Amino acid sequence: MTIETLSTTRSHGGTQSVCRHASDTTATDMSFAIFVPDHAEGAKLPVLWYLSGLTCTHANVMEKGEYRAACARHGVIFVAPDTSPRGEGVPDDPDSAWDFGLGAGFYVDATVEPWAKNYRMRSYIEDELPSLLLRHFPMADMTRQGISGHSMGGHGALTVALRTPDRFRSVSAFAPIVAPTQCPWGEKALGGYLGPDRALWTAYDACALIDGGARLPDLLVDQGDADTFLAEQLKTPLLEESCRKAGQKATIRMQPGYDHSYYFISTFMAEHVAWHAERLKRGR
Amino acid sequence: MTIETLSTTRSHGGTQSVCRHASDTTATDMSFAIFVPDHAEGAKLPVLWYLSGLTCTHANVMEKGEYRAACARHGVIFVAPDTSPRGEGVPDDPDSAWDFGLGAGFYVDATVEPWAKNYRMRSYIEDELPSLLLRHFPMADMTRQGISGHSMGGHGALTVALRTPDRFRSVSAFAPIVAPTQCPWGEKALGGYLGPDRALWTAYDACALIDGGARLPDLLVDQGDADTFLAEQLKTPLLEESCRKAGQKATIRMQPGYDHSYYFISTFMAEHVAWHAERLKRGR
Repeated sequence: MTIETLSTTRSHGGTQSVCRHASDTTATDMSFAIFVPDHAEGAKLPVLWYLSGLTCTHANVMEKGEYRAACARHGVIFVAPDTSPRGEGVPDDPDSAWDFGLGAGFYVDATVEPWAKNYRMRSYIEDELPSLLLRHFPMADMTRQGISGHSMGGHGALTVALRTPDRFRSVSAFAPIVAPTQCPWGEKALGGYLGPDRALWTAYDACALIDGGARLPDLLVDQGDADTFLAEQLKTPLLEESCRKAGQKATIRMQPGYDHSYYFISTFMAEHVAWHAERLKRGR
Repeated sequence: MTIETLSTTRSHGGTQSVCRHASDTTATDMSFAIFVPDHAEGAKLPVLWYLSGLTCTHANVMEKGEYRAACARHGVIFVAPDTSPRGEGVPDDPDSAWDFGLGAGFYVDATVEPWAKNYRMRSYIEDELPSLLLRHFPMADMTRQGISGHSMGGHGALTVALRTPDRFRSVSAFAPIVAPTQCPWGEKALGGYLGPDRALWTAYDACALIDGGARLPDLLVDQGDADTFLAEQLKTPLLEESCRKAGQKATIRMQPGYDHSYYFISTFMAEHVAWHAERLKRGR
């Protein structure tokens, strides 16, 4: 488990790095971005994960997410993984569509060939990358983790957190796909990676998981009402309904005029970081 | 003088737009980005210009500059022009170098062929684009303008402001080229666009202008000390020396560990916007 630092840049009173490592899980090299605020020698900082959306790499939020000022202020490490395996021999959507294959791992462990060998983003996010951080970033306090994400990555954040309730103290999302079993992006991805048996899909559907009894510590969601994917793909009202029925504590905010882009995400990023920081700093 | 709005996106409590217009000055279409904070009907907001560096378009600072939160907070319009003419028939560096030609207009009015027809960024920034704003953005208070920029655009901000002392109430720069007559980038650009007579270059050299008696209302400069262009191209100490000799009020800050990138610019952007806002909001 070695790790290569591809770049290190000073920004906002901290260090923004891009790292690469050979992943056993995906059988490829994987890259991720990590921002570490300046801190006292030996100090431990909480970790906020951010899972990105379709077509993204680690770089999109790193360049456009506007999280560094808030993370430096609150002393929070920000980790942004890639969204799929990449590299020679990694299969892609046969039509090179942007909603499946490269850049579209959907945070699942694929069981169908030819995807099963490399497309294992669930295990990568749940097991391998946290282990790597624990080993290589001694200032990362893995007892205090939060998770967020955008769109497909909002789906990832919600479902990873719902399946591992003890890992995260705080969960938020920007414009998440809340019920992939009920929208075209999700049906294509889950059908493609997992096969036609819909019973296998529910582990990857936030609403289904909540309906089935899984719970989050708390939840903050921002969703733009001018987001062109809202009605067909994101379906925020389904999450509101599942949370209401389950008594799941949640703050789900419709933001008037905002779309699906990083212009939206960056607007509310500082609030999300502050929201996570508050929960990551208090005792359980 | 018509203007076409290419995109309009809600962000940080305001509107980020990209506009295009046919420029008489450059004899090309020109694009620029403009962020307008939400404001009361009929209100007038001060205008902060931001001139970008080599290789950039309007888009770099729009995506990575992290100015919107501060501009919305302070009620400041942010305008980011392109760095050169572009389009069919516009000549480029014969070797396609990135420090001359497309993306490298250097904010001069070229006098040498084949550049003289299109490469007229000085007049574009000094005359045409302000006139366009006055006509098409009635909320822009052109009696309250500030200007900033990065690298080649820092040079642009300083020299435009030094030549038009009544136009700007506030001037700042990120890692500016302070003396283009004394560095390789500047010598190539000024020699190429203006010819070998160095006497014609001084109108485009901030240090030479200050040495010659031109003055700024006040000046804020941030410069990273890990900027690899500092010693050979940017030469901040020359600006410190010219300001000291001239009694020019200036705050020139060396920022330890910071490089030349938008990770540096975005770190100090909010402070620059606040600094401009303070000066743009008080009376003369």
